[in-house]
Amino acid sequence: MDSRISSTSLRVRGYHLDGYGHVNNARYLEFMEEGRWAYFDERPDLFRRLQRGGLAFVAVNVNIDYCAAAVAGDDLELTCWVSELGTRSARMAQEIRRQGDDALVSRATITFVLLDVAANRAIPIEGELRDLLAPLVLVSHREA
Amino acid sequence: MDSRISSTSLRVRGYHLDGYGHVNNARYLEFMEEGRWAYFDERPDLFRRLQRGGLAFVAVNVNIDYCAAAVAGDDLELTCWVSELGTRSARMAQEIRRQGDDALVSRATITFVLLDVAANRAIPIEGELRDLLAPLVLVSHREA
Amino acid sequence: MDSRISSTSLRVRGYHLDGYGHVNNARYLEFMEEGRWAYFDERPDLFRRLQRGGLAFVAVNVNIDYCAAAVAGDDLELTCWVSELGTRSARMAQEIRRQGDDALVSRATITFVLLDVAANRAIPIEGELRDLLAPLVLVSHREA
Amino acid sequence: MDSRISSTSLRVRGYHLDGYGHVNNARYLEFMEEGRWAYFDERPDLFRRLQRGGLAFVAVNVNIDYCAAAVAGDDLELTCWVSELGTRSARMAQEIRRQGDDALVSRATITFVLLDVAANRAIPIEGELRDLLAPLVLVSHREA
Repeated sequence: MDSRISSTSLRVRGYHLDGYGHVNNARYLEFMEEGRWAYFDERPDLFRRLQRGGLAFVAVNVNIDYCAAAVAGDDLELTCWVSELGTRSARMAQEIRRQGDDALVSRATITFVLLDVAANRAIPIEGELRDLLAPLVLVSHREA
Repeated sequence: MDSRISSTSLRVRGYHLDGYGHVNNARYLEFMEEGRWAYFDERPDLFRRLQRGGLAFVAVNVNIDYCAAAVAGDDLELTCWVSELGTRSARMAQEIRRQGDDALVSRATITFVLLDVAANRAIPIEGELRDLLAPLVLVSHREA
Repeated sequence: MDSRISSTSLRVRGYHLDGYGHVNNARYLEFMEEGRWAYFDERPDLFRRLQRGGLAFVAVNVNIDYCAAAVAGDDLELTCWVSELGTRSARMAQEIRRQGDDALVSRATITFVLLDVAANRAIPIEGELRDLLAPLVLVSHREA
Repeated sequence: MDSRISSTSLRVRGYHLDGYGHVNNARYLEFMEEGRWAYFDERPDLFRRLQRGGLAFVAVNVNIDYCAAAVAGDDLELTCWVSELGTRSARMAQEIRRQGDDALVSRATITFVLLDVAANRAIPIEGELRDLLAPLVLVSHREA
């Protein structure tokens, strides 16, 4: 796998499901968040740079496709990468695939702005942080 | 308010928040689902028609904007309407506004297909169900 | 109803359920938290006293019975009262009943300590706060 | 570790927290459920015996202590074992410890009845299922 992509996995449990026996729509956003935390776990320099600067990436849009229903016992592979780096916002692309048959369960594009937490306002993505992010960008075919 | 729009409200509680003290991204999808259930509560004919036919609207895409952070104690107004009715899919538009200052907290467009639950496959939206839905469509300015 | 008891209601939705079509165990704790927030909503003096003092009641034990399964569409009545007031801890009793047949769905006793948030340590329940709480205590038969 | 104890781990994430920056009370019940699924993952014979018989263990009581607050980034170890096997009910004991300092974060005792799912009624724990469970019982010191 491309080194710019992070991957983690989780097993679907009873508490993830809704009354149809499928993973509930809202849970997928928790799975996506799990995938993003794994991304930062693997890039401690990036995470520390954000923390040191009192900065946080805050989601302003999530566009998520539900492609196939995941059920209890499914082992899901969550992948995550930076797909776009603008001046005022950045995007991450994420996919959830079922291990075994590699079926695409869900995919999402999340748009972030960079927040100065203390000032509670969005600021440009520039300087050292931009230098850290630039080599991580992977333009996916879907969006190219 | 236009009779094609349904509205319900809820108060933000501690368990809705994440570590930043804001409502977590994933929770908004539960709030949106709450808004859609309220929509069907007000249209029992529509709901019964779905149940009688062994049909369910299943989300295939959610496109959600996070516009302002809601915090504990905020009273939120959830509105919901059908914004598009195609042959193979339909769309609902939803908004979450903070009562008091009417600030837009979040808005979303959800795309559904109609599922024949027993056969587990998408079917066209036609016949009696289409006749029930057609007068409910409200094309919102944002999407017009 | 005894004025020392607070009550609120909610309707069970699809996202509250698990794969069995029943409200999931963990969700009941969110319902119980909802019931406690309603309790404080009705007693703003008590809530302000806590906030002004930098104090919070923090749960150290939850003992919850699951008596009947709630399903989608059920309207639940959540009641809540202070059942015990000790020097070092207090207890709230909570019940969830299904409206209509008044069936007991769940009941719980939650034990709290009083936290000095800044110091992050438990302190005795005394002085003005104790005076506010004392008249609210309702010893329930179950625990008497 | 005693072979009758199952163990799994998870890392605390932002979406597990509440407004205080601590894992929310209700989330611990999801963590406990995660621990129990891991228990059954390691004992496929037991799980298949339940499924083949149309049986499910259903929680009728949870008694949970919150001992220390877990925060984002904590790696938690979830342990789980059968602590009591009665004729009409069984108990599982569960602990959550923070890796690193081994601090006890939470512990719980969950009481189950055995449900005949089709008939929707509790039945005695006997025969082959009891034979499978009996050697798994580990009476913990806390309850002895």
